[in-house]
Amino acid sequence: MKVTLIGGNGFGKLHGESYKQLGIEFSVYDRNLEVLEYYRKNYGVKNVFDNIEDALHSDSDMVDIVLPHKMHREISIKAMELGKHVIMEKPIATTVEEATEIIEASVKNNVKFMVAEQYNFDPSLNKAIKLVNENKIGKVHTIIVRDQREYKKTGWRSKKDQMGGGALIDGGIHYIETILDIGGDYRKIDSYSYHGGSSLEGEDTTVALFHFVSGSHGMFFYSWAYRDFPRLPSYEIIGEEGSIYEDVQSRPQEEFKSMTGIRYVYGNPVLNGEKVEIHKEDVFNLEIKGFIDSIKSNTEVPYSHNKAIRNLKAILDIYRRGD
Amino acid sequence: MKVTLIGGNGFGKLHGESYKQLGIEFSVYDRNLEVLEYYRKNYGVKNVFDNIEDALHSDSDMVDIVLPHKMHREISIKAMELGKHVIMEKPIATTVEEATEIIEASVKNNVKFMVAEQYNFDPSLNKAIKLVNENKIGKVHTIIVRDQREYKKTGWRSKKDQMGGGALIDGGIHYIETILDIGGDYRKIDSYSYHGGSSLEGEDTTVALFHFVSGSHGMFFYSWAYRDFPRLPSYEIIGEEGSIYEDVQSRPQEEFKSMTGIRYVYGNPVLNGEKVEIHKEDVFNLEIKGFIDSIKSNTEVPYSHNKAIRNLKAILDIYRRGD
Repeated sequence: MKVTLIGGNGFGKLHGESYKQLGIEFSVYDRNLEVLEYYRKNYGVKNVFDNIEDALHSDSDMVDIVLPHKMHREISIKAMELGKHVIMEKPIATTVEEATEIIEASVKNNVKFMVAEQYNFDPSLNKAIKLVNENKIGKVHTIIVRDQREYKKTGWRSKKDQMGGGALIDGGIHYIETILDIGGDYRKIDSYSYHGGSSLEGEDTTVALFHFVSGSHGMFFYSWAYRDFPRLPSYEIIGEEGSIYEDVQSRPQEEFKSMTGIRYVYGNPVLNGEKVEIHKEDVFNLEIKGFIDSIKSNTEVPYSHNKAIRNLKAILDIYRRGD
Repeated sequence: MKVTLIGGNGFGKLHGESYKQLGIEFSVYDRNLEVLEYYRKNYGVKNVFDNIEDALHSDSDMVDIVLPHKMHREISIKAMELGKHVIMEKPIATTVEEATEIIEASVKNNVKFMVAEQYNFDPSLNKAIKLVNENKIGKVHTIIVRDQREYKKTGWRSKKDQMGGGALIDGGIHYIETILDIGGDYRKIDSYSYHGGSSLEGEDTTVALFHFVSGSHGMFFYSWAYRDFPRLPSYEIIGEEGSIYEDVQSRPQEEFKSMTGIRYVYGNPVLNGEKVEIHKEDVFNLEIKGFIDSIKSNTEVPYSHNKAIRNLKAILDIYRRGD
């Protein structure tokens, strides 16, 4: 399997680390020559491209797209038409129409396609959901999901037209994934997205209430405009007979930087007041290896298109509600 | 000043403790003879009444009403017509009409009236609000207020018709006070109140979004149906240039039971990441002494009727929205 990473900066580096750890040959495109130099030096990549057309036309079997959200459709479809399998950073696109075109292109060109949603692979959250499904806390009545940080993004991640929005469609989509994975389908969202104190053009803070088909209710908070924030549980699941919430102490101190070098998202679940120990696994390696395995065995990709579109739709529902 | 405490059980005991600490003579009515014995033994009260009419007709200057919410109007108006000043546990009443009748009766009978909302006197929260008003965190964009517990109430506090609702109109009203004290007037609330796993007939959990006239947004959570809950900040105030949230470590381990015996509500504020030390004061003594002083000096009561009605209206707004 030969891979070309399209966009080496930022999260591209986290993907690059996975290819190295998984022993997979890869080349890199970036318009920034210093970024290319970083890959040559740190990962010994043979081929680097500063022209995206050359990168797309190279002899790789798959491309890994880490570009501004607004470019997802154009570049992914171009790659698929060249016969490449495509993995792509979230969000799938900035509109459902774009997303649908991407999925249709993968069918038409008979290539695998997957959104890289590493939160889907988080062992702690998956354990928490398993505990709910095993009825350890009775019927769930309330789910609280939140994350907060102070971000002063520049470049395309501060531009509303490149992002398709603001903080929510960028980092917030992971927490939308989390609340929907726990809560399931919703019948209604009450929400507001607005601008607090960040460098973004678009919104940087969202508050929302989810009303799930199951009858349970969700509270959601995501912000890039919270200075000197406390570290608080990212998820709480409250049932008629018990509760599960994230233990903040066992969360990596910095995002994806655990003491052991294994990259994961959430601290261990606390079930009915007792910490549950989790076998940690690297979420980036899981998603990339899972995708490559699905290509090799021609099976379903491990992260479904339905979930990628579900998350985007929820975000667009929230944006439509506006302020 | 001679006081009759009408309803000695539960929170009545916390009021009784204040009369003792403030050196104020008081007598007690309760229908439960064991409760009366408790007061005779622990507080050396001379007069006890197991008949409410006798208690109301005694020679006290003021009565302190700690009865089921649904009885507030009848008993308080009866006391006022007998010329007694009245302090009364929250909520003021179960409807705005009842509340208005009570206030009108205090004017007509020329007696002082006040709702005992001890959270209004909490020195930590008042310091936090002062810091916001001193512009220490810039324009506030988000306020998060929450509290959770597992309560298995029996007796009248489990009965919807006696409570005028469920957990929100009972304990939750304090946190409504908090979010409205921070956020000010609201233009709209999105909310749901519903039943989780408690012993209540009525709702035991509320999720709400407040949209304030100032432009800021509030998230609110209150539940009596959260087993094995984590201890989390009760309030977070997020501004464009900083933040203030409650330090959980300096909150009393149990409600109103601090190590020093001084009864207060919230831990110290954390302003822009740094703990702010607060001179602790007893919230029950402050409210009762404040009310008695206003009688003696014939000045305004220290907790306004407007706030008592404001809180009730917000709760009824939330209940109207229903589920």
